[in-house]
Amino acid sequence: MFDDADLTDDKFLCGRLRLWQPARGYRAATDPVLLAAACPALTGESVLDLGCGAGAAALCLGWRVKGLALSGLELQAGYADLARRNAARNGIALEVVEGDLRKMPQVLRRDFDHVICNPPYYPPGGTPSPVATRATAMQVDEVPLAEWVLTAGRRLRPGGWLTMITGADALPELLSGLGKLGSAMVLPLSAREGRAAKRVILRARKGGRSAFRLLAPLVLHDGETHGGDRESYTQVANAVLREGADLSQFFG
Amino acid sequence: MFDDADLTDDKFLCGRLRLWQPARGYRAATDPVLLAAACPALTGESVLDLGCGAGAAALCLGWRVKGLALSGLELQAGYADLARRNAARNGIALEVVEGDLRKMPQVLRRDFDHVICNPPYYPPGGTPSPVATRATAMQVDEVPLAEWVLTAGRRLRPGGWLTMITGADALPELLSGLGKLGSAMVLPLSAREGRAAKRVILRARKGGRSAFRLLAPLVLHDGETHGGDRESYTQVANAVLREGADLSQFFG
Repeated sequence: MFDDADLTDDKFLCGRLRLWQPARGYRAATDPVLLAAACPALTGESVLDLGCGAGAAALCLGWRVKGLALSGLELQAGYADLARRNAARNGIALEVVEGDLRKMPQVLRRDFDHVICNPPYYPPGGTPSPVATRATAMQVDEVPLAEWVLTAGRRLRPGGWLTMITGADALPELLSGLGKLGSAMVLPLSAREGRAAKRVILRARKGGRSAFRLLAPLVLHDGETHGGDRESYTQVANAVLREGADLSQFFG
Repeated sequence: MFDDADLTDDKFLCGRLRLWQPARGYRAATDPVLLAAACPALTGESVLDLGCGAGAAALCLGWRVKGLALSGLELQAGYADLARRNAARNGIALEVVEGDLRKMPQVLRRDFDHVICNPPYYPPGGTPSPVATRATAMQVDEVPLAEWVLTAGRRLRPGGWLTMITGADALPELLSGLGKLGSAMVLPLSAREGRAAKRVILRARKGGRSAFRLLAPLVLHDGETHGGDRESYTQVANAVLREGADLSQFFG
């Protein structure tokens, strides 16, 4: 467990959501917010967040779509505990199960309408953090991306959707491991107009048979240089990151 | 062989290149021009065009970069013959070999600095053309995309580059089959700003170890609606398709 003195109290969606996060180690930023915005879950549906951390993605989604049955799987007890506290604090129901995706806990061995996933990730050329929890959260070598995708596929009902955010450099590995997931769409996320994508959001459907689609990029910042975190967001990024809008228009 | 009466005399690069093409069957349009523009070949290097058709890609490349050793492999005798005639007509040296990429002719079993490839392709949901030559040129089911990539990889020297153009829907198959090709980059080609990519250009290097990069899209047309083929090209598309410029700035 984390010591309360080691936590920070962070605002998401402009304070619509408040989350305790460890001051050091893996800290959610924009990725889980973008992930939640890309998930097409509807009221009444079930959603599993694979590797839910302190709950940012699941709770952003729960804030936007009321009446979801939200579950999260988390390897580390400290993060699982935070996810439970963060859910209670924001009045959003979230079942948090501590466990390893390679040995799926019995309680989660059921079908979900949606799986969302922001797997741990080393940037190309990056090195593991010396902080233990961060190192665990980023043990990408231990669980290959393909295994995250495979596990997600197993937990989906036929016709259910996986929504996943990863580094753009992982796209070959991601698209090589789709298996029974089809109708895949990739939304590139680029920092600025005309730049290569840093991140990608994948949506794919269990048993889907539509052709793969490479969507137009979502550009996060306006202008050529970085003029402060908030002011430089594009209109779309601002709507998603500060107001909790969804990204359905992009996946049309 | 095609009957001369069944040929059209087509301008490429605004008439800088003139190519005989069959009036019916597979006819090169913008794809081979974009492919040639994306190939980073330099004077003195060797280039193999896998499935060269009537020679459009190889000859556009030979027009832009002088002093290349250009070779083309073509399955159909009629197209191979046209490629030879088109090369002679434009004063560009091109060795054309008739043969099947699944049984690489002995004369081409050597290493190349570059392989370029615009494989035959069914659009999603498309059906084979009733015209025999078009059907042959489009027998994508007979030779899976993965085999084109594998064959290209075998013909490259270590460090040599594959440059390939395909439908964007083929990206999962393409990225799944890279094998020994690394340092891959994908340039999405979209008809208009904000639209999903219709085509993609892949560049990958034999033995390359750089991270995969998903580049910002090249947008071909300006504006929201199609206002005539030529007038609507973006400045970049115009430079490539009408003036024979290269796309090196995109692959930075």
